[in-house]
Parts: sequence; C-alpha cells; structure tokens
Amino acid sequence: MSTNRTLLDALTGDLEIETLLDDEAQVAAMIRVEIALAQAEADAGMIGVAAAAAIAAGLAHFAPDWDDLAVGMVRDGVVIPALVAQLRSRIASPHADALHKGATSQDIIDTALMLQLAQVIGLFSSRLTALLDELDHLDSRHGGHVMMAHTRMQQALPYTFGAKLATWIAPLRRHLAALQAARRSLLVIQLGGPIGDRSSFGAHGDAVARGLAKQLDLGLAEPWQTARDTLVGFASTLSLLTGTLGKMGADVALLAQNEIGAVVITGGGGSSSMPHKSNPVNAEVLVALSRYNAGLVGTLHQAMVHENERSGAAWTLEWLTLPSILVTTGASLRVASLLVGQLELPTLPA
Amino acid sequence: MSTNRTLLDALTGDLEIETLLDDEAQVAAMIRVEIALAQAEADAGMIGVAAAAAIAAGLAHFAPDWDDLAVGMVRDGVVIPALVAQLRSRIASPHADALHKGATSQDIIDTALMLQLAQVIGLFSSRLTALLDELDHLDSRHGGHVMMAHTRMQQALPYTFGAKLATWIAPLRRHLAALQAARRSLLVIQLGGPIGDRSSFGAHGDAVARGLAKQLDLGLAEPWQTARDTLVGFASTLSLLTGTLGKMGADVALLAQNEIGAVVITGGGGSSSMPHKSNPVNAEVLVALSRYNAGLVGTLHQAMVHENERSGAAWTLEWLTLPSILVTTGASLRVASLLVGQLELPTLPA
Amino acid sequence: MSTNRTLLDALTGDLEIETLLDDEAQVAAMIRVEIALAQAEADAGMIGVAAAAAIAAGLAHFAPDWDDLAVGMVRDGVVIPALVAQLRSRIASPHADALHKGATSQDIIDTALMLQLAQVIGLFSSRLTALLDELDHLDSRHGGHVMMAHTRMQQALPYTFGAKLATWIAPLRRHLAALQAARRSLLVIQLGGPIGDRSSFGAHGDAVARGLAKQLDLGLAEPWQTARDTLVGFASTLSLLTGTLGKMGADVALLAQNEIGAVVITGGGGSSSMPHKSNPVNAEVLVALSRYNAGLVGTLHQAMVHENERSGAAWTLEWLTLPSILVTTGASLRVASLLVGQLELPTLPA
Amino acid sequence: MSTNRTLLDALTGDLEIETLLDDEAQVAAMIRVEIALAQAEADAGMIGVAAAAAIAAGLAHFAPDWDDLAVGMVRDGVVIPALVAQLRSRIASPHADALHKGATSQDIIDTALMLQLAQVIGLFSSRLTALLDELDHLDSRHGGHVMMAHTRMQQALPYTFGAKLATWIAPLRRHLAALQAARRSLLVIQLGGPIGDRSSFGAHGDAVARGLAKQLDLGLAEPWQTARDTLVGFASTLSLLTGTLGKMGADVALLAQNEIGAVVITGGGGSSSMPHKSNPVNAEVLVALSRYNAGLVGTLHQAMVHENERSGAAWTLEWLTLPSILVTTGASLRVASLLVGQLELPTLPA
Repeated sequence: MSTNRTLLDALTGDLEIETLLDDEAQVAAMIRVEIALAQAEADAGMIGVAAAAAIAAGLAHFAPDWDDLAVGMVRDGVVIPALVAQLRSRIASPHADALHKGATSQDIIDTALMLQLAQVIGLFSSRLTALLDELDHLDSRHGGHVMMAHTRMQQALPYTFGAKLATWIAPLRRHLAALQAARRSLLVIQLGGPIGDRSSFGAHGDAVARGLAKQLDLGLAEPWQTARDTLVGFASTLSLLTGTLGKMGADVALLAQNEIGAVVITGGGGSSSMPHKSNPVNAEVLVALSRYNAGLVGTLHQAMVHENERSGAAWTLEWLTLPSILVTTGASLRVASLLVGQLELPTLPA
Repeated sequence: MSTNRTLLDALTGDLEIETLLDDEAQVAAMIRVEIALAQAEADAGMIGVAAAAAIAAGLAHFAPDWDDLAVGMVRDGVVIPALVAQLRSRIASPHADALHKGATSQDIIDTALMLQLAQVIGLFSSRLTALLDELDHLDSRHGGHVMMAHTRMQQALPYTFGAKLATWIAPLRRHLAALQAARRSLLVIQLGGPIGDRSSFGAHGDAVARGLAKQLDLGLAEPWQTARDTLVGFASTLSLLTGTLGKMGADVALLAQNEIGAVVITGGGGSSSMPHKSNPVNAEVLVALSRYNAGLVGTLHQAMVHENERSGAAWTLEWLTLPSILVTTGASLRVASLLVGQLELPTLPA
Repeated sequence: MSTNRTLLDALTGDLEIETLLDDEAQVAAMIRVEIALAQAEADAGMIGVAAAAAIAAGLAHFAPDWDDLAVGMVRDGVVIPALVAQLRSRIASPHADALHKGATSQDIIDTALMLQLAQVIGLFSSRLTALLDELDHLDSRHGGHVMMAHTRMQQALPYTFGAKLATWIAPLRRHLAALQAARRSLLVIQLGGPIGDRSSFGAHGDAVARGLAKQLDLGLAEPWQTARDTLVGFASTLSLLTGTLGKMGADVALLAQNEIGAVVITGGGGSSSMPHKSNPVNAEVLVALSRYNAGLVGTLHQAMVHENERSGAAWTLEWLTLPSILVTTGASLRVASLLVGQLELPTLPA
Repeated sequence: MSTNRTLLDALTGDLEIETLLDDEAQVAAMIRVEIALAQAEADAGMIGVAAAAAIAAGLAHFAPDWDDLAVGMVRDGVVIPALVAQLRSRIASPHADALHKGATSQDIIDTALMLQLAQVIGLFSSRLTALLDELDHLDSRHGGHVMMAHTRMQQALPYTFGAKLATWIAPLRRHLAALQAARRSLLVIQLGGPIGDRSSFGAHGDAVARGLAKQLDLGLAEPWQTARDTLVGFASTLSLLTGTLGKMGADVALLAQNEIGAVVITGGGGSSSMPHKSNPVNAEVLVALSRYNAGLVGTLHQAMVHENERSGAAWTLEWLTLPSILVTTGASLRVASLLVGQLELPTLPA
C-alpha cells in the first residue's frame, strides 16, 4: 500500500529502503536486466551483436511513460508487457524484436528484484554491523554494571549489563551471518521463459543464463518461478532479525519503567497531557515492527502455493508483503540504532 | 509503509481510500476534533466561550509545518504534541492554553480516526451496493444459464449461473448490513484524558463527551483507549468481505480456465511472451487481496494486548495494519466491480 | 492436532470444550442431525413416516466402528460416507436408503457443528458471566484503592483500581453480548444437498429445511456451504475476547512486578532454581493464549477462499483451526477466573 | 491442543511425530538430560561421582506420577519443579540435591526438546528422501509425457511431465539440505542456569556444558534461552517444505480436474451424495496443511519477543505452536507420499 502517510513513516518507515524499492528503482533494474539479457543472448549467438548494441543504446537514457505503465499494470497484472512495448519503441529498427527475446515477464521482474535485494542486503548488513559496534561499545563502557535480572516478569538474581547485552548481541551476530549467506543463496538470476523450462531460448538457454548471471553479478540457478522457498526463507530470516530487535525493545521498555529504572532513555517521547513523562518510543516501535513483520512473514508463507507454472494470485500476494517486510526490517535496524544511542545507565546515588 | 510504488497501487491499491487516510486528511480530522472539543468544553463551562471562538478562528485556515510534525512524530511517537504546539501558536492570546484542555493525544487521534472511518464506511457501502446491483443485473440477464457445479475441484451436478451468483450475493448482503451496523457500534468518540478516566475534565467530563459526540455526529461511549475490540472487530468484518470477494475471484479464475470456459473474462491480461493468453488478472488480484487482509487481520488481533493504560507498541502496531486493511478492502471492492464488468457467458455453439 | 500432551493441556487447554468437540460428541451430533433430517423429510412427505421411525429406532443406540470411520476419513476426506454406510446397516429393511436422502456430507457436518457450538457458546457465556461477577466483586471490595496508572510503560497519574477494572469489564460485557447475539446469527442449519442449491430435495427443500431447523432448535438459513463469513466472524469475536483477557493478563503481569507491587498474585508459580520467586503464570498464559488465537483467526480467515461449490482444502483448513480457537477461548476464560481468584491488593504499610 | 479428534488426525495428523512429542517422550528426554547433566557435573568435579551414579541408578526405571506433574504444571507453568521433586524422591540419600544442580527448568526443557527434534528431523529426512525417490521414479516412468503448462490459470504452452516434476523436486532437494544443515545449527544444548549466564555453575559452567553436549551428542552453544531465532528459523524452514508440498497439492488438484484430466488420482475420495466423483483428497489436504503451517509460523515469530531473561508468555506461545508445526510437517510429508503413489497419467486414446 502506498499512501501519503509520511508522518507514520517518519516513525516506522525507512526512506532509504523505500527508495531502493520504488517504481523508479524497479524499472531501472528491469531495464538493466533487459540490456544484460540482450548482451548475453548476443554472446550466445541467439541475437545479433548489432541488436544487443542497439538495445543498449536505445535504453541508455530511457524515461518511462508512467501513466502508460500504470494502464498496462492494471490491464495485464504485470508491468512488463507495457514496459517492453515502450522500450521497443526506443530501439533502432530492425532490432526492437530482439529485446526480451525468449523471456517472460517473470524473468525480468524476479531478476530485477534480485538486483534490488543485493542493495537492500548491503544496507541491512552495514546497519547491522554498525549496531553491533554500538552494542559492543556500550558493553565496553558499561558491561560490568551490576543490575537485576528478571525472569517471567519477576526479579531473579543479579547479573551484569554485559550479560544482558550478550543476549542481544549473540542472535544479532547470527543474523549478520545469515545476511552474508543470503548473498550467495538468494541472489540468483531467474531465467525460464514463458513456462519456466527455458525452451523459449532454444539451444541457447543455459548459455544465456550463464551470461546473464555474469553480466549482473548474480548467481546462476535453475528457473525458480514457482519455487519461492529461497525468497520466503530470506524474508523469514529478516523477521528473525526484527524479532530479536523487538525483544531488545521489550527489554528496554521494561528496564526503563520508573519503578525499575535500570536503564535511562535520554530524549524519550513527550506527552501532550503529562509533561513529566519520558516515553520509550523507540523501544515500543521495535516491538510493533517485530510483530508486524511476524504477521507479514506468515502471510508471505501463504504465497508459496502457486498454481501450476505461475500464479498471479500468489505472486501478487508476494508483492504485497515482501516490500513491507524489507522496509520494516530496515526501519527496525534504523530505530534500534536510535534506541541504543539513547541508552544510559542510571547514576548511582552518592 | 509508504513507498512510491504507484504501479503496484494501480493494480492493488485504492486511491480514494488512501486519500481519506493520508496525512492531510488525518490532520484535518484532528483539527476538527480539537475545535469541536473546545466548543463542547465551552458549552459545558469548562473553558470560556471566547476561548472556543478564538480556537475556531485560529484553526480555520491552518496549514501545518509538516517537517516539524514529522520531527515531533519521531520524538514523541505520536503527532499530537507537535501539532498542538503549532496550533496553539495560531490562537490569539490568552486562549492558546484552552486548546486541547484535559485531552490526551489518544482522544484526538482515535476520535479523528472515527471521522475518517465514517467516510470510509460510506465509500465501502456505496461500492458494495453498486456491486450488488451489478451482480443482480448479471443474474437478471444470465441467471438461468445452465452450467456445471464443481465440488472439491471435480464436476458435481448441473446448476444455473444464478445459483452460483447467489453464493456470492448472500454473504455480500450480510457484509453490507454489517457495514451499516458499524456506523452505530463503531463510530463513537474517544474521550478519556491522560489515563482514560476523564478525571482531567473535572466535573465536566460527561458533559464534554456528550457535546463532542454531538458536534461531530459520532456516538457517545465510555473511554475505550485500551479496549480496541470494536475497532478490531470492524476490521475483522472487512476481512470477511474481502474473503467473500476472494472466493468470487477464485471461482471466476477456475471457471474461466480454457478447458472449462464456463465464463469468459473480456479484456483479460496480456502476456509479454504468449500473445494468445487472456489472464484473469482481476480474479487473481481478489484472491491476493483476501489473503493479504486475512494476514493483516491476524496481526491486528495481536494489537489488542495493550499494556496498562496505553501501549505505544500495540497502538503503533494498529497504525501499521489498520490503514492497510482499509485500503485493501477498498481495492477489493474496486477490483470486484471491474471483474464483474468483465464477465460474460460463453456463446453456445449453434 | 491431537497429541497426548496432557501436561501442556492442563495449563493451556480446556477439557470441557475439548469434550464438546471430540469425535464422540461430533458423531453423536451427526446422528442427531440424520435422525432430525429423516423426521423433517417424513413430515414434508419426502420419505415415509415408517422410514423415519425405522431410522430413529435403528440409530438410537448406535456405537460406531471407529476404525472403519478413520479408514473412510482418510479415503474420502470426510467421515460421512463411511458413517452413513455404517448407519444404513443398522436400519431395518427397506428403509436404509431413506437415511441421508438428498443430503450431502456438508449438510450433516456443518449442522452438527452448530449443535456443538450451541453448547460451546453456552459454556462460554456462563464462564464469562461468572468472570464478570468475580470482577464486580473485586471492584466492590477494592475499587476505591488508589494506585498509579501507567501509559506507554511509564508512570502517568494516580487513579483507582476500580478504574483499572472498568477497562477490563467494559469490553468483556460487549463480548458477552456478542456471544448472545451469535446464538441467533450463527446457530443455523446447513441444508443444501450436493451442490448447495437444495435441488436434491426436489420440491421439499424449504419444507425440510424448516423442519430440520425446528427439530434441532436451530435457525433457518439459506445454504451457506461456501459462505463461511458468519462462522469466521464468530471466531473473530472469540479472538476479541481472548485479546481482552490477554490484555488483562499483561496488566496483571506488569502490576505484579516486584518493583511495582500494585497487585499481588497469591499462589504464583514456583521455580526449580529460585525458590524466592512467585511467577505470574496465569497472567502469562492469558497473553500466550490471546496471541495464539490471534494467529489462528488470521489463518481461519484464509479459509474463506473456497473453490466453487465446496473446497476440500479450505474446509479442512477450517477444521484445523476452528476447534483450536474454541479450546483456546475456553482455556482463556478458565485461566482468567483462576487469575482473578489469585488477585490481591498489597497491604499498605502501617 | 489435545483433543480426542482421532478422525481428523487420521486425515491431517501424524501419529509417529505425535509420539515423538508426547508427554512420555518429553519426560523421558528430560530425564535423559538430567542424568547426562549429573554425569557432566561429576566429570567436571561439580558434584561427586557417587552422586551421579546414584542419580543414574535412581532414574533408570522411573515412572512419573502424571497427576502430580499436571498439578505442578498448572501451578508453576512448567513441569520441571514437580518433576525434579519426584525424581529427587527416587535418589538414594544424600545425593538427591545433586540432581538438577545449577540448572533451571529451561535448561532441561530446551535441551530435551533438542533430543526430540533430533528424532523428528531424522524422520522428516527419511520421509523426504523417500518422497524424492518416488518423484524420481515417476519422472523415469513418465517424464517424457507431453502435457500443457498453465500460467495464471490459463493454458500456456506444451511441456513435459518431467518439467512439471522438476518444479517440485528442486525445492524439495533444498529442503532436504536444510534439514541436514539443521542437525548442526539447531541441535545444541541449552545450559544457562536461572538467568542464562551459567553463573549458577560457578567455575564449572563451560566444562559442564561441554560434557552435557558430548553425553547427549548435541552441539555446544552459548545459552540461548531468550534468543529463539535458530528454533524459529528451523520452524520457518519446515513451513517452506509444507509450502512446496502445498504447491504440489494445488497443481495436482488443478491437473486432475475432469475438464483437464492431465493426471489421474487413483482411489480418490468418494462422496456421500455423488457416487461418480473421485475427489483429490490428499491434494487438498496438502494445500490445507501448508496454509495451516504458514499461519502457525507467523504466530511462532510472534513468540520471539521475550521479556528480559525469560518470558512465560512467549515461551508458552512457542509450546502452543511449535509442536503443531512439527506434526503438520510430518503429516504433509506423509500425505505427499500417499498422493504421489496415487498419481497416474491418463491413457491416451488409441
């Protein structure tokens, strides 16, 4: 859903991730895929070298007719037919038909998504690395501070703030490793043609696939158009990350209660009616984002049930959920860093 | 999430509903609530008549400083403190403090939401009424057409297209009745003050509540700031509606299969690789929207667990899900009408 | 899922509700429906009076062959074909064929479910009424007790325990009213025949339906075999109830923290390693049950997308979720009463 | 939820998995953990060798008092305090106190879960391997059979049954690899003591952990009592598997439609009212199970938000969902094999 709700987005959204996923970014990625596909097909001898050059030249400074794309989206349920028609009109005769040759909408959309996800993963990784640094720094400053542990909402035994931090840091390190692993397992091309068997590429299928992967710096893979497990698994990994950050938020909100005061949140949120309050806004937002992502991931798992060689219903459901999962994950990382930057330990009475 | 994904929105979004829910509409509704509150407080003798007049005059043509509101949103987790500060600066001295008197952020936000929901329900009702008319019209034209019923994905026995339509129409009529009922049960004011007991209004609480309800043409209710059952119940009702429309979409996609051909979808979606195809795009979108809403409703039910007198976490989770449910419902009604307009029965061979 | 996990069930289950839903209860309800159907058909002149009498006599003391029913369930995906075969073998010749005449499996299963739900709703209503009495009693004893309200996990302003109780009681009263309303809106017969249009009952369809409803003390309704909105709406209502109780549990767990001590839970749970602890077990269980039900309700909404005149997939999904929602709701009511019985206010220092 | 719903379980459950997870299996695993812990503590010099021997001897043929365990479960929210009390009464004086030394309930419960999961993973792996063999066999027999591919519910282009099978097999192979990987990443001990920092084991903590891991043939790990990411990630992986099988079920149900007839399901389900029908029961069940698991996984992700050093609410929510996910996964594998065994290709007309 795209509404002009920038106020809520300021709190719970993520402009950087949203920009990596918006229409402009997506269409740019699609064009990059089409150009790379043409080059790979030329290299494989499936289209002429002149055609690939004409395609690269024609699409170099393309600016879409967005209204026409929207009309096509509504008509076809995917944007590619309208986009390809626009692109072909930019390619010098007689090479227009060489564009998108053998490919289907999903080849372009899924591969473009991988290009976008490469950037998203990069951003997540650097944010998470920074967050871990911040937590390590907090540990080095205050790790020895003694405080009370709580189990089942009751005082348990004393431990240190460092022991608390360790419970946040350990899973976050695993999530960082999972992001790194996803670069290899997730970021692969999609190339299958209309029904996902590469038959539309004749004898050139595997060569084109190899060329496309190489051009785009993506991994090689068999067509996966109806097998969304790697993608859904990646999204599940992101929900684990927001779950960990939600747990961190819950901890902070509990520890910052007035009656406990084990941590202090500097710059906590104000109230319109109670000036004395300092609300743990970022801690609460982390909890909300983790629960939102948990729900979205459950819905995305519903999108695995594709009918036959392509399900418009399941694929659309993926489009409705996956971008929100990405933005929510980005927002959670963003807010977590804000929160860690607000954390102070109470000054002990003299 | 607000991204510049207008292409996907063209397919699965709803611009009218989004507009009713966007920042401008929300802030306008909030200001309407603040003005009505001042008037109700003046009528009850809690603030002066001159103050109420100054408030109404000062806020009449208010244009917010959006950047400042966003800063406040990030700081406070709610927009009201920043908004009230801006509003007070517009009110002639010495009446600024009379604004928002006794109220808390949630009074304004929840009551404003009700004003917005009144419009949303109106739009849903008229769309659903129109859809029912379209289905009745289809029934009157083709209801006697004999076709094959299918149970458990297998041919069952012959019946009529009218019998099929009846299975869509009956629940839709119940949903329409539920929308009407929601006008009374859902659309009520929120007025509780900081901790939801109206004590901040002194002896004037109930009088102010009555006045506020009357001013805004909303129902009267005890404070419900942590009791979100009516709101979540309403959202559940909307998911029932999209579920029914999703079932209609599933039926159409099945009946329009080439091998069955029991219905024809005129203007079906085209493919970038298979020109012969006519894809049941709108039918598939209805299925996707119903599954998306089902997931969102489950997540919204998670938001019922408020901590004590207000949960920032639960409330933010509600903000993340409820607008999407509303837009998805609107989109589903919109797309359902498109689909019904595309439905034709096959011409029988001579 | 049925496992021998009676330890967990002791904590989170509900033996009474489970008993109302188990195989024996379900088959007994199905037989009651078959007998009532035969009587209604005899009254309508669709089968002979002697046939109805033979059916009633034959089924009076029927004990199923459970293994054979399980074999039929696996083979057919519904138990009715095997059950009807067993039942027919008990009916004196030549009346066996008069059993189940015109009916389909779903008529029997759905109508039997309504008989079971009538009992479930009765049990929920009496438990909820008792819980409200307990809360009223608590209010009469301690309602004036002054304590600190908390918003967004921070101290807000003083209020009374009665004000806190009011936030639990108000939604619970609405839920009780919703349970009463469900008796009328939900508890209706299902009678449609194989494809849901009653054509299999010839001219007798509506008369048989009226008779069946009257015999079983259920409401009359058009066939709703693929329109599950009323049922899913009812389940949503139950999740609102468990959501309210989950919120009550969250409040109690927070208020009973050692550092706050605003309420005392007598007989709290012990720890295997920390003898000093008194854990808010029942409060935590209420939170867990509310989150579990929220998730189940989201999944049940997915089951609205039936394909054509009956979806084995959607219907089975309903079977997997609805009973768990009912048991979870029963457990939540059961545990809420336990918790309220454990609540004490702290003795103030002299 | 444990109800006596063995009829539904016959269709959608899994007796083998249920048995691996039932009370008897769980308590047996707990006792195995307690014995191994004592041995590891003796090896580390934390308790005496005689104590470990007395513990092993005392618990060798222990039969629990189940009623007493249930009472303890209700009182404490975990079974361990009652179980440890029972166990201690079986250990020869003066060694009873050496049992469970330094440990907390969660150490025993989580580590016992890992022992159970080791068996569950073994069963899943062998079933999935067998299923892949069956699919390979189907491919070798019929892979070259030409049929029509369908995209977006419409006829696309011809392909082979082998190409269809490849879309099922490829993700299933990934799931098998994920199960193998889970043996290493998931199956680790939990040892943290009351607050998860191993301080209750004094200087012996890491030595005891190493010994426990070795005794139980589990991996070594830092305490993870509130970091459930690996466990929730594993459950997500299982939902990917059931999602793939749900997609296979959806394909089969579509291909087996009378009007398409691309595959034939031998021994399809019968109807109580339409003797001509052959229902794709197992295909539908696979869809239902995949959607059920998708929902459960979303709920399990909600259980990541632990409060501080242990959340009774989040942990109980995990208990409510994880076993169902395991049984649903087992059932899905079981039913998938049934379905593949039923698949035939139509005999072509002579």
